[in-house]
Amino acid sequence: MAEYERTMDFSKLRNDFPTMRTDKGVYLDSACQTLRPDSVIEAVVEYYEKYPVCGGRSVHHLANEVSVRVDETREALCRFFNGSSPGSFVFTKNTTEAINTVAFGLGLRRGDAVVTTDSEHNSNYVPWLTLRDSAGIEMRMSHSGPDGLFDIESFKEAMDGNVRLVSMCQCSNVTGCTVPIKAVAEIAHDHGAKVLVDGSQAAPHMKVDMEDLDVDFYAMSIHKMLGPTGMGVLYGKEECLEGLRALQYGGGTVGLVTYDSVDFAPVPDRFEAGLQNYAGIFGTKAAVEYLEKVGMENIARNDADLMRYMFSRIEDVKGLSVVGPEDPDKRCAVLSFNIDGLGSHDVAMMLDSVDGIMVRSGMHCAHPFFVSRKVEGSVRASVYLYNNRSDIDRFATALGKIAETFGGR
Amino acid sequence: MAEYERTMDFSKLRNDFPTMRTDKGVYLDSACQTLRPDSVIEAVVEYYEKYPVCGGRSVHHLANEVSVRVDETREALCRFFNGSSPGSFVFTKNTTEAINTVAFGLGLRRGDAVVTTDSEHNSNYVPWLTLRDSAGIEMRMSHSGPDGLFDIESFKEAMDGNVRLVSMCQCSNVTGCTVPIKAVAEIAHDHGAKVLVDGSQAAPHMKVDMEDLDVDFYAMSIHKMLGPTGMGVLYGKEECLEGLRALQYGGGTVGLVTYDSVDFAPVPDRFEAGLQNYAGIFGTKAAVEYLEKVGMENIARNDADLMRYMFSRIEDVKGLSVVGPEDPDKRCAVLSFNIDGLGSHDVAMMLDSVDGIMVRSGMHCAHPFFVSRKVEGSVRASVYLYNNRSDIDRFATALGKIAETFGGR
Repeated sequence: MAEYERTMDFSKLRNDFPTMRTDKGVYLDSACQTLRPDSVIEAVVEYYEKYPVCGGRSVHHLANEVSVRVDETREALCRFFNGSSPGSFVFTKNTTEAINTVAFGLGLRRGDAVVTTDSEHNSNYVPWLTLRDSAGIEMRMSHSGPDGLFDIESFKEAMDGNVRLVSMCQCSNVTGCTVPIKAVAEIAHDHGAKVLVDGSQAAPHMKVDMEDLDVDFYAMSIHKMLGPTGMGVLYGKEECLEGLRALQYGGGTVGLVTYDSVDFAPVPDRFEAGLQNYAGIFGTKAAVEYLEKVGMENIARNDADLMRYMFSRIEDVKGLSVVGPEDPDKRCAVLSFNIDGLGSHDVAMMLDSVDGIMVRSGMHCAHPFFVSRKVEGSVRASVYLYNNRSDIDRFATALGKIAETFGGR
Repeated sequence: MAEYERTMDFSKLRNDFPTMRTDKGVYLDSACQTLRPDSVIEAVVEYYEKYPVCGGRSVHHLANEVSVRVDETREALCRFFNGSSPGSFVFTKNTTEAINTVAFGLGLRRGDAVVTTDSEHNSNYVPWLTLRDSAGIEMRMSHSGPDGLFDIESFKEAMDGNVRLVSMCQCSNVTGCTVPIKAVAEIAHDHGAKVLVDGSQAAPHMKVDMEDLDVDFYAMSIHKMLGPTGMGVLYGKEECLEGLRALQYGGGTVGLVTYDSVDFAPVPDRFEAGLQNYAGIFGTKAAVEYLEKVGMENIARNDADLMRYMFSRIEDVKGLSVVGPEDPDKRCAVLSFNIDGLGSHDVAMMLDSVDGIMVRSGMHCAHPFFVSRKVEGSVRASVYLYNNRSDIDRFATALGKIAETFGGR
């Protein structure tokens, strides 16, 4: 990719994405997965063509290259997220695996409470509900305001000395609302609780500084930030990772094993069982470097511009109701909405067939949010750095036609 | 790739592998990971360039293509391995995740016994040792003969009505010895136990027919059979998978979630938490199709030819001792050995520096096997379909020089 300026012209970036160059339609589903730039694809191909071997095991020249790249990727993540050390970044398959690693690794037991919010992804409920049923922990909830905005008073009410962990998404994948993680972490720590952040929707869109946020664990999905599929990261302060039991065991996670005993390997290896997704690790480094060059402040500004433009363009769409806040500045790159008289899947399929516009529909793996509000789901349009105003014009035009023709009778 | 005959000329295949075309050295570390053919790399690139989106979630045209490919990949696996249904194939990160899913999903408890062998990979010990310590299960062992050959009488002695599971590698990654899985499964079932096979070393090298073997679970690594990194498969009979608790929970693994309850999704989705390695799934289909075209019988025959040739070429190497059976026909594509007076890592590094020959050294994640035999490790040379006699000549020549110059004084 070209070297980009701090205040940059995002229209140039679009050409770095093969899916954009071949006009496969208007992609507004980046909250699910982002498209990939050439540099990431090239890094993956480089692995498969030149070094398609294991890292951290064999000592031959190709294996050494892979081992070095794995280290360099952790260093790139550490620099990008200002973590405490490269070894604080554990490779996982996705955010879900990262959350589950913390959930089942902390040794939570009867009497322990976990505090979450009412706007989480299933991945941040189901582990706690499972532990409630198997280990007798308590799951508590911080309740949002009517628009889905985080309510710090409700959070404070949920806190007491029984809370071992606060686990929250930094940005909701439905409402786009952002939780003030730094303030949450301070309150949690005052109560002796640790903090786990589901950063899958935040990390792609804003500067995340681990030292500044002072979080204990942070989970993210690299495939939502231009990187390869099957790649997530669990960040943890080293002392927090040290105290965590692994979710699975095998090659790479142990020091010496006999028929009768096991020594576990140090962090982060202890959590990376079996051969890893090395092509994914090569691509992760390329993705982080791409985001670094563009600049997270630039990305956040561009996302906000696009969201404001989107809100201005859908104002007159007949029967449209927004799920979550109606203020574009309160939404982290996602607009969720419904059209009167139409199911969300119908709207999504019509957008696709009318003009190749790709959005998500349904409950977005956030069932409790919808079930509790008696809403059957929503359409979700999400933007990222390769989208432009023309994408949003096409989306708004098609949506207007659909609402006019089939909506609210 | 070209269409290959049943009795084929393997020299043609070599050209399908970019790493071979650019002569990066002599690759004899396929038991760790295999090289990848163009068709697999092309499938991965096709995903990233054309359909870099989520499967099984959104309903737009690119997402639908991914969902279809995921289904097609399960169908290809089912055909290739003669499984009970496509839904019996669960995507995992690697064999380790597959084994851990069974280990921690069966609900084993105090009084239950698991029978394994003395020649397993750590991934097939550590979960059981962990469950011994946490849940009070018993880990029993079937002992091999002096050469590492499976002893069915020792296995029978280990069996009784307390055994819930027999978990064995079909082929050892150290000795190359093969366990007669069909006979083992029959005996296990007679005792009411289920059977889990670690097929990571067998599946790349021989025809594996799930119906014929009549196993309950079979774990394998796709990156050891020409496929992408970070891809494994857990095969299970549907009724066996139905009875298994998942290792982790999140998006995709659940039906409806409320703040208070969870419905789990049907098999196989229940086990595939969060966004999957879709590029890996695209590449898995290509890998299976490649192996299908070459023919597993042809591959097994070619492996055996290469192993016989290797044994004939190393006969005169000074101070060489073989770990495991000295009969090439008893070794599934791996030769483990030591040179008198030299550490295994030293031999591996010298082979690499003398003529770019890549082998594995150390304990190969099979610590108990080595510790119990008071052997510090071994060098391991492993072959696959792209190797030829010239590779073995270079290996034997370099090894002879190293042994002559630095060995056994």
